[in-house]
Amino acid sequence: MAQVYDRVALIGLGLIASSLFWAMKRGGLAGEVTGYARSDETRATAREIGLCDRVCDSAAEAVKGADLVVLCVPVGVMGAVAAEIAPHLAPGATVTDVGSVKADVIAQVGPHLPEGVHFIPAHPLAGTEHSGPRSGFAELFDNRWCLLVPVEGTDKDAIARLRALWEGAGANVEEMDAEHHDLVLAVTSHAPHLIAYTMVGVADDLRRVTDSEVIKYSAAGFRDFTRIAASDPTMWRDVFLTNKDATLEILGRFTEELFALQRAIRTGDGDHLHAYFTRTRAIRRGIIEAGQDTDAPDFGRGARKS
Amino acid sequence: MAQVYDRVALIGLGLIASSLFWAMKRGGLAGEVTGYARSDETRATAREIGLCDRVCDSAAEAVKGADLVVLCVPVGVMGAVAAEIAPHLAPGATVTDVGSVKADVIAQVGPHLPEGVHFIPAHPLAGTEHSGPRSGFAELFDNRWCLLVPVEGTDKDAIARLRALWEGAGANVEEMDAEHHDLVLAVTSHAPHLIAYTMVGVADDLRRVTDSEVIKYSAAGFRDFTRIAASDPTMWRDVFLTNKDATLEILGRFTEELFALQRAIRTGDGDHLHAYFTRTRAIRRGIIEAGQDTDAPDFGRGARKS
Repeated sequence: MAQVYDRVALIGLGLIASSLFWAMKRGGLAGEVTGYARSDETRATAREIGLCDRVCDSAAEAVKGADLVVLCVPVGVMGAVAAEIAPHLAPGATVTDVGSVKADVIAQVGPHLPEGVHFIPAHPLAGTEHSGPRSGFAELFDNRWCLLVPVEGTDKDAIARLRALWEGAGANVEEMDAEHHDLVLAVTSHAPHLIAYTMVGVADDLRRVTDSEVIKYSAAGFRDFTRIAASDPTMWRDVFLTNKDATLEILGRFTEELFALQRAIRTGDGDHLHAYFTRTRAIRRGIIEAGQDTDAPDFGRGARKS
Repeated sequence: MAQVYDRVALIGLGLIASSLFWAMKRGGLAGEVTGYARSDETRATAREIGLCDRVCDSAAEAVKGADLVVLCVPVGVMGAVAAEIAPHLAPGATVTDVGSVKADVIAQVGPHLPEGVHFIPAHPLAGTEHSGPRSGFAELFDNRWCLLVPVEGTDKDAIARLRALWEGAGANVEEMDAEHHDLVLAVTSHAPHLIAYTMVGVADDLRRVTDSEVIKYSAAGFRDFTRIAASDPTMWRDVFLTNKDATLEILGRFTEELFALQRAIRTGDGDHLHAYFTRTRAIRRGIIEAGQDTDAPDFGRGARKS
């Protein structure tokens, strides 16, 4: 695969940044990769494990001379980071991000960037329950989607180049506008995460069911919720605060449906329940056919320890 | 491993029965295994794939001479099946089941069984999103829990023997009383399933987000919900109708918590959200330490097709 950028700067060195680094190395997509993280500890870890060709002690130093700057920080601090790096950006450079919310990031970052710098927001739809510089791996984006959300009038060549980077990192790339992105993600990711966090919190509160029982007997259902609810708290706090309207709208619809199903349980309306559960099966089939999950019957059991 | 029962009858031939059959064969746990399913098609499939040593055309025939009868039918029909087989049970035989609800099954089945037959309700905490006779595999119960819920005064030797069967099939066995079982399962399985079904239904209803987008971009969160929401509709309808009180209680608490988090989003209370999400992480760690899931960073990606 051909090199896409001469110098890439990663600002923030968590799961996504570290995975992108290893994916760029795997594909030979970048010349030099610099990196910066606010925490001393993260920078020390990055140096220890060889994450980035050069770990810098300031964001300004990291972005100097970079033709691509990737903001990999929580959504809530994107604006502050953009303000910090803006004076140091090279003319003609592209700034992108990996945040889970797009309209708010555009509003935060856009005003800080100078003329002649291309701003192309992006969102790779990939993750694990782990976070931090040690959690990355080159295959994270393979066969996953990366959504580009360019603002109107963005340079076509700059978009094509960023697309080439993400495709080189293994992702399938599509373009979408910011409002639509935020609604789609509220349905497919943000609301489900809040719901999973809630259910795990309920279990934790219920003292009659001891912690150890909830943990021991979590074979079905709840275990998947705990995986979702183990995601990075700072990242998710920011997601909910910055994609507030779409998330609250979806949660409102969710509550309405849940009340209807609760009533069916209370009144013993088995036909209603059966019809509902039959309909939801079809969506699952679609996801498997779209190659976004496996239907192996021993799903997730392969790496079990004993 | 030593043979535990001379003749085992499986009534109902879905995921759990077929997995138990293959696990018994793997471990040499049973002499002859007979099987019965109400549907002609299921019996034909069972004969085709060698599921059961002998597939019978009536439940009465299947249980004749069996020293263990395992009811593997949806919870809602346990009573009817018990009534059907009761006159044909051998003296000293053990009847057990694999239903996800226990108090209701005891109330349904118990009254039908004759003196001298041991009734030991059980619940293996294992499953996949698949159902039917072709979905079983010998490893389903390996390192999973099987809960025995014996009624008071049950013969100790009969319990020990059933325990030996499930341990031979790979499971860890514990005893629990029926009411506690139903509450624990409402938290760890029943409420999470209803919530997952609901969220998938909401996504399906939301016409602005097309089906294909929900499916394409389901990388995080929602994908896990669809896996849960693809479970067998008949089984789950019966679970909710027969474990009504505990499920509704947990759903009530869930709604209360969800409203509190929604309010935190609406008012921008980031500290509340962050503290909540931090707390739920600890439960996840416990599950991994308990060996009930893997924390491999590429969880579930191994069998991906392309």
